Amino acid sequence: MSFAKAFHGRLFASGSVTRSKPVHKMDMPSFKWPKAEFPAYQYPLEDNETANKAEDARCLAIVENLFKTWHCPIAGVIIEPIQSEGGDNHASAEFFQGLRDITLKYGAKLLIDEVQTGCGATGLLWEHERYNITPPPDLVTFSKKMQSAGYFFHDPEFIPNFPYRQFNTWCGDAKNIILAGAICQEAHDNNLIASIKATGDYLYPELEKIQAKHPKTFLRLRGKGKACFIAFDMPSPEFRAKFLSTMRANGVNIGGCADVGVRLRPTLAFEKKHAKILVDTIEKTLTSLEA
Amino acid sequence: MSFAKAFHGRLFASGSVTRSKPVHKMDMPSFKWPKAEFPAYQYPLEDNETANKAEDARCLAIVENLFKTWHCPIAGVIIEPIQSEGGDNHASAEFFQGLRDITLKYGAKLLIDEVQTGCGATGLLWEHERYNITPPPDLVTFSKKMQSAGYFFHDPEFIPNFPYRQFNTWCGDAKNIILAGAICQEAHDNNLIASIKATGDYLYPELEKIQAKHPKTFLRLRGKGKACFIAFDMPSPEFRAKFLSTMRANGVNIGGCADVGVRLRPTLAFEKKHAKILVDTIEKTLTSLEA
Repeated sequence: MSFAKAFHGRLFASGSVTRSKPVHKMDMPSFKWPKAEFPAYQYPLEDNETANKAEDARCLAIVENLFKTWHCPIAGVIIEPIQSEGGDNHASAEFFQGLRDITLKYGAKLLIDEVQTGCGATGLLWEHERYNITPPPDLVTFSKKMQSAGYFFHDPEFIPNFPYRQFNTWCGDAKNIILAGAICQEAHDNNLIASIKATGDYLYPELEKIQAKHPKTFLRLRGKGKACFIAFDMPSPEFRAKFLSTMRANGVNIGGCADVGVRLRPTLAFEKKHAKILVDTIEKTLTSLEA
Repeated sequence: MSFAKAFHGRLFASGSVTRSKPVHKMDMPSFKWPKAEFPAYQYPLEDNETANKAEDARCLAIVENLFKTWHCPIAGVIIEPIQSEGGDNHASAEFFQGLRDITLKYGAKLLIDEVQTGCGATGLLWEHERYNITPPPDLVTFSKKMQSAGYFFHDPEFIPNFPYRQFNTWCGDAKNIILAGAICQEAHDNNLIASIKATGDYLYPELEKIQAKHPKTFLRLRGKGKACFIAFDMPSPEFRAKFLSTMRANGVNIGGCADVGVRLRPTLAFEKKHAKILVDTIEKTLTSLEA
């Protein structure tokens, strides 16, 4: 089972659980696997607690209903801690624990895809740690930030019970392990996870000020307390396209996600001094586009 | 479409066209795609021309029948120039051209998997070149020998017609390209493809002598003229297990394929002096096992 708007990759299995854009799946054979719904919250969170709790309950009911009605047992559930390609959609600890409880009830495995969120980007080594999922997920995937096209760690019970069930000549790629090790060492020696967390703690209130000043063009700011894993929405795809290209013309390379989202994905070395440039450039760009 | 005994990998798409061992596919979801038969020749080839021609015709008829009767159009055919995991099974130029003609007749693409055969191992840069397939295959895959988990080259018409149809953050991996370039340079500077061809031209007649001397235990020698991409069969899986372990005890690491095959897969740096050690060790091992 995966979730609407999820992105887990483009191969035939990962593509079968990817639900973000039609272009990702065009002409691709696909397994018919169940699709649930990921919570869509109203922001700011503190003003919308009741509505967002109801949204959690609605989405969990869809998950459980799929388990009850699918034509065969569902082996596992794969989910991003924060849906990224799908629009930087966040969910609560209650939602993740509820999901975990349903997987336990129906004997399914819980797979967490940390390709975008993992390796420190949200101020934690793994974003799923924030939600105290109990017991922890059965399998966690990560990738590019550790210089590989695919890593994972998992519960010991996943160790294959026969030789050659999981094997190829390419298992273990020393040069990528060396690179991943060097990346971890650099992050450790320079306290980069604490640093990106501090940058985010500075940046988020600055973006809240922009949201207060530009309430018609800078919407649904989200990612508070999650380092610089921050996103906001624009009023339309057309406005976003202009915003992104003007930001670039003004010297800041920044990307979109889903239809109207703008997401920040700086490296761990992104500091307060860089965040100031970002804030000033967003302010300048919005002011010029509103003029 | 793929062929019985084929091995193309273990992911969900490549696994769906892999047909070698049950352990490779155990508990793996799989697409139901058509399976044809790869020729099974009698050896030595020069004494079995009529039977082997009939085998080509039988296998091509199965291919064409699948095209005619499959419930939907078949998009492509994937095949190894020499089936490797499946037992070092060779096929003729006539078979490959016949297969090419059928793909053209039914508008399907021809994909050649050169993961084992490519990059010089058979004395040609690409083994499929030996068969003068006309027009050439539409897509060729290769991999480990060029230090990557997956490369391919293809007809220009395969270039995606929309942005993002084929894309990920990991496209292009500079360090692997550098390694692949260094491997090619080394092979080029040292004439390694000509060298491995010369080693095979020395080795094959030596193995024919062994076959003549051990007609009950050393069977179906094959791979003549294909450098050191040579294999032979043993009389039973049990005998082969003993042979492989005794060879290792005698200092030569050598591997099996399929049920009773033994295959040679030396590096391009394998020379006559190494081949002599191999021949002497096979002779010594067979003599001891027959005693």
